[in-house]
Amino acid sequence: MRAAVMRNSQLVVDTVPDPKPGEGEVLVKTLACGICGSDLHALKYADKMVEIARETGSPFVLDLARDVVMGHEFCAEVVEYGRNASGPARPGGRVVSMPVLFRAGRIEGVGYSNEAPGGYGELMTLSAALLLPVPNGLATEHAALTEPMAVGLHAVNKARLEPADAPLVVGCGPVGLAVIAALKLKGVEPIVAADFSPMRRSLAERMGAHVVVSPKERSTFEAFRDATNMRPAVVFECVGVPGLLHQIMREAPVGARLVVAGVCMEDDLIKPMLGINKELAVQFVLGYTPDEFAQTLQFIAEGQIDVAPMITGRVGVEGVPGAFETLAKPDVHAKILVEPWRA
Amino acid sequence: MRAAVMRNSQLVVDTVPDPKPGEGEVLVKTLACGICGSDLHALKYADKMVEIARETGSPFVLDLARDVVMGHEFCAEVVEYGRNASGPARPGGRVVSMPVLFRAGRIEGVGYSNEAPGGYGELMTLSAALLLPVPNGLATEHAALTEPMAVGLHAVNKARLEPADAPLVVGCGPVGLAVIAALKLKGVEPIVAADFSPMRRSLAERMGAHVVVSPKERSTFEAFRDATNMRPAVVFECVGVPGLLHQIMREAPVGARLVVAGVCMEDDLIKPMLGINKELAVQFVLGYTPDEFAQTLQFIAEGQIDVAPMITGRVGVEGVPGAFETLAKPDVHAKILVEPWRA
Repeated sequence: MRAAVMRNSQLVVDTVPDPKPGEGEVLVKTLACGICGSDLHALKYADKMVEIARETGSPFVLDLARDVVMGHEFCAEVVEYGRNASGPARPGGRVVSMPVLFRAGRIEGVGYSNEAPGGYGELMTLSAALLLPVPNGLATEHAALTEPMAVGLHAVNKARLEPADAPLVVGCGPVGLAVIAALKLKGVEPIVAADFSPMRRSLAERMGAHVVVSPKERSTFEAFRDATNMRPAVVFECVGVPGLLHQIMREAPVGARLVVAGVCMEDDLIKPMLGINKELAVQFVLGYTPDEFAQTLQFIAEGQIDVAPMITGRVGVEGVPGAFETLAKPDVHAKILVEPWRA
Repeated sequence: MRAAVMRNSQLVVDTVPDPKPGEGEVLVKTLACGICGSDLHALKYADKMVEIARETGSPFVLDLARDVVMGHEFCAEVVEYGRNASGPARPGGRVVSMPVLFRAGRIEGVGYSNEAPGGYGELMTLSAALLLPVPNGLATEHAALTEPMAVGLHAVNKARLEPADAPLVVGCGPVGLAVIAALKLKGVEPIVAADFSPMRRSLAERMGAHVVVSPKERSTFEAFRDATNMRPAVVFECVGVPGLLHQIMREAPVGARLVVAGVCMEDDLIKPMLGINKELAVQFVLGYTPDEFAQTLQFIAEGQIDVAPMITGRVGVEGVPGAFETLAKPDVHAKILVEPWRA
């Protein structure tokens, strides 16, 4: 199959062997797959990622000497089931799945594995037991956004918002936008969101932010205070660069709770005294539960989460390396979908 | 009065002006005052402390060019009330108080202020409205431990323990011992505690720890796992040195909640990916509420918190500088009390 492949820390397009569905697995055609900021990170910090995966005992440890086909935000079409496999859709039916594959007693991250190619290739193998059928009438490209939107729902659930709490979303890339969508879904008001990019601020408003701040023009926390009238602050860090956690700890009000959804792969310096003097709380979050994933698909299908504004581009397999470069500039795109079978 | 004074980053004993009770204030004789690890820190990192106080907008900003009489864990005897001041004890009666003084619309930290000398001197002025009477029969030296024990109660309250949670106390200095006492008070079992010092491990057991670990002999988290059978971990960091937060984040199990009660005054390096991959939560804590302070006095008076094992030494004012040096070695003392009127 054709696929965009991470090879020697480069992204190249090549023809690679088709995956074969093993026992309990299903072979699918990738219909659409979002490009995730984590994949941009992974390409840039592959060694670091492997080191940390080892350090934390994560099951997702890549062999960087071998090919990896990334892509874990997908909607796909069932081609054929392997032995002892059945799912909720027949061949030709559309499905989504959490990007994990259970194989031979191991767990593989689909799109983060040497064994389980992801959605930047034409074909994938998935665990049949994890398939969720895409409801009739739900556009393929919207179903593909189940995964990133579930990240936002999970972050908001982990924040355990109390009625008095006021949220501040720092960073309006796809993670921040997903957090905004989940906050809107829960009826939280006002939602304050900050980003340097005018395009992203405009997207934040379309996704549900009531107040958007340009940190270049105005202090984010000052704008937040004005908008929320000293309500308890819950700050969603959705950027993931070194130094930002410190900056938020320095500027956040007393008693603020920080939810770290941005993925900072590098070491980071903090001043614990800032946390101590203000009794800050920091909740790191990752991924979602199976329930949250299924709920998110449902919310998208029912129109309670409108993902349409987030999709800003579409490419075929050959366009993936270029799309990675484009996404490094935050003022052009939010979510680019890879459609591997695109002509 | 005679007092141990922080002057030019040194601790010296000198005769300084007696404090005078202003409106709403009370003049007291210091009967006993515990030496706190924060004071050792403050002496060593005075500049840093002032810088961070400014940075966080804390009301407690010292002028290091002027004298500071430290000491904020005290029991005192009422001498005389100032204008418009009355309290729950007559002259001669014993009191404790949160170490804050309201004066001229400002808040001063008693023992962390150029205006409000603390308990390393013979006399103090306190806010009459904050006085709590020491119940008859409660030893002065035990009442003096209200403040540090309240720190432990607060840390445990902030942890919001669920019934399934299992606590691990890292560091068994006075803060760790106070946390252990509060955990015991709440009936939590088992309490696992770790410290390099045999003396402190033995104190931890006397304060209520069920399992004590010497990290030199055995992995703390391995011992914790064995003792708690994979129950959700709540780790109390009660040391406050750079690098320890990272170490705990590296070794803590998935989903662990960290309560940072140790006071690390220096910058600290963390790897956010460790927090993200394990969805760790970090709650920084400081001090206590007025309710928690009053409750702690009551718990000590009723014998529900037994502070006797913690008191390992007593000195007069002249002995304070020597006591600071002694306390730098963790295997000799837990809490040394200053008794300024001691012959």
